Amino acid sequence: MAISYCPSLRYTAKEHVISFPHVNFKDYSKKRNCRLVYASALKSEKELLFESKVGPLLDSVKWDDKGLAVAIAQNVDTGAVLMQGFANKEALSTTISSRKATFYSRSRSSLWTKGETSMNFINVHDIFLDCDRDSIIYLGKPDGPTCHTGSETCYYTSVFDFLKGSQDLKDRLLSTTLHSLESTIAARKAEIGATENGKPSWTKRLLCDKKLLCSKIREEADELCRTLEENEDRSRSAAEMADVLYHAMVLLSAKDVRIEEVLELLRHRFSQSGIEEKNRRKSDH
Amino acid sequence: MAISYCPSLRYTAKEHVISFPHVNFKDYSKKRNCRLVYASALKSEKELLFESKVGPLLDSVKWDDKGLAVAIAQNVDTGAVLMQGFANKEALSTTISSRKATFYSRSRSSLWTKGETSMNFINVHDIFLDCDRDSIIYLGKPDGPTCHTGSETCYYTSVFDFLKGSQDLKDRLLSTTLHSLESTIAARKAEIGATENGKPSWTKRLLCDKKLLCSKIREEADELCRTLEENEDRSRSAAEMADVLYHAMVLLSAKDVRIEEVLELLRHRFSQSGIEEKNRRKSDH
Repeated sequence: MAISYCPSLRYTAKEHVISFPHVNFKDYSKKRNCRLVYASALKSEKELLFESKVGPLLDSVKWDDKGLAVAIAQNVDTGAVLMQGFANKEALSTTISSRKATFYSRSRSSLWTKGETSMNFINVHDIFLDCDRDSIIYLGKPDGPTCHTGSETCYYTSVFDFLKGSQDLKDRLLSTTLHSLESTIAARKAEIGATENGKPSWTKRLLCDKKLLCSKIREEADELCRTLEENEDRSRSAAEMADVLYHAMVLLSAKDVRIEEVLELLRHRFSQSGIEEKNRRKSDH
Repeated sequence: MAISYCPSLRYTAKEHVISFPHVNFKDYSKKRNCRLVYASALKSEKELLFESKVGPLLDSVKWDDKGLAVAIAQNVDTGAVLMQGFANKEALSTTISSRKATFYSRSRSSLWTKGETSMNFINVHDIFLDCDRDSIIYLGKPDGPTCHTGSETCYYTSVFDFLKGSQDLKDRLLSTTLHSLESTIAARKAEIGATENGKPSWTKRLLCDKKLLCSKIREEADELCRTLEENEDRSRSAAEMADVLYHAMVLLSAKDVRIEEVLELLRHRFSQSGIEEKNRRKSDH
């Protein structure tokens, strides 16, 4: 039961055991089950079709003169770009089969699965190729911080922050709008209790006054509904939705809930892939 | 008034005119004002500090043996990775000064500002370097589709869709959870009116029944508030927020509003950069 596309996979007759020969598993077995054992030795037609297509897929990538393509890992929920490395044919095929983001280390001339040392694997949900077929995105969910510095993403140096030359500058993680807003709210929350000049910001007032916060959330949700019920302009719906989101995110902050957790829940309910898709169909959303 | 860091900039004494000498402007002037004219010839201390730091910043990047680093353009609101190219020192300095994502074309051996032909510039709000200083992210807002195919992003080929071998497969854009959910809702909306077997999905029922949809939004917002008021477990807040988000996004779909528009509004209200930051401070959020 040999497979041609991935030299790093070992298959046995009775069970499909997927291993990472380049990974040092000495610590891995303590934390996780390192053997992904498939229940049946019989492959379905779908599985065979899948495997027969991996070779052509790998051949369709435009590998450079060193046999490499850029590989970017991105958090499926937050959209944060976690890291960027390079993949060769074997790294991509290993990622496809193991669903753990795997790269080719140019300095060590070897395959490298992100997390093989730190255990912070990036669990790949989907892989995208660009229009030129020379750039790859591993879209997935990290088990923990991706950067070797302990940072969530390797991108934490803002060029413009650096150029503005603030002395009290702290690292600022790359983040998109929703997550920047979350950071802003968290910063206001952290300031609560500190001596202030002038009146506290609106966010702080909301954080300190449950009654006010909840009345605002109910009010904004009602206003959003009225844009539909009263056929208001679509720009009103966008503005009211922004209000709902902001105030609801202040509540999440008060409850120490990250928007990433909410997005993960939504993904589990609505994801298009595998078992989740099946459940989604069952629940008939 | 020479500047050392960017050979592609021309400065005059009376006004600061920034031009892109490598860009063919024959069509550009029809659509936009191609000259960015600064009001004053006198530079503030902040501007001088900014400029004095660009050289060291450019020198701190670990350019490869060809003088290049990977440069990734990402949509600041949606998190979608738009495209990936390479930058040399000049491309990065041009991006810093012009705030338009600029790359080095390896095939043409020249600078290339995304949008110089299509007018679909990527307006760069921030630039991030990774921990190794050999990978760059241009975080910005595209004027239009980034891909030469007219697609929003160059990443529209899903490896797993390809491997599953669906015959009726259409291109599926790379997208993160919130935007995948939006696509799922849009797909249900598009199915409305088609002959159906069995009862319609919940999303379709909501889309067809304003009263039901609005009562659900008000109900879910109320339940979210009660998780705070009644000190429920934080997991309840996450679950109720997921319900609020989903139902509110169905309303947005009914009003033909994209979540990207809402995020853009939030960014304008809360962004940490430039004028927006000033306004944010004024509004005292």
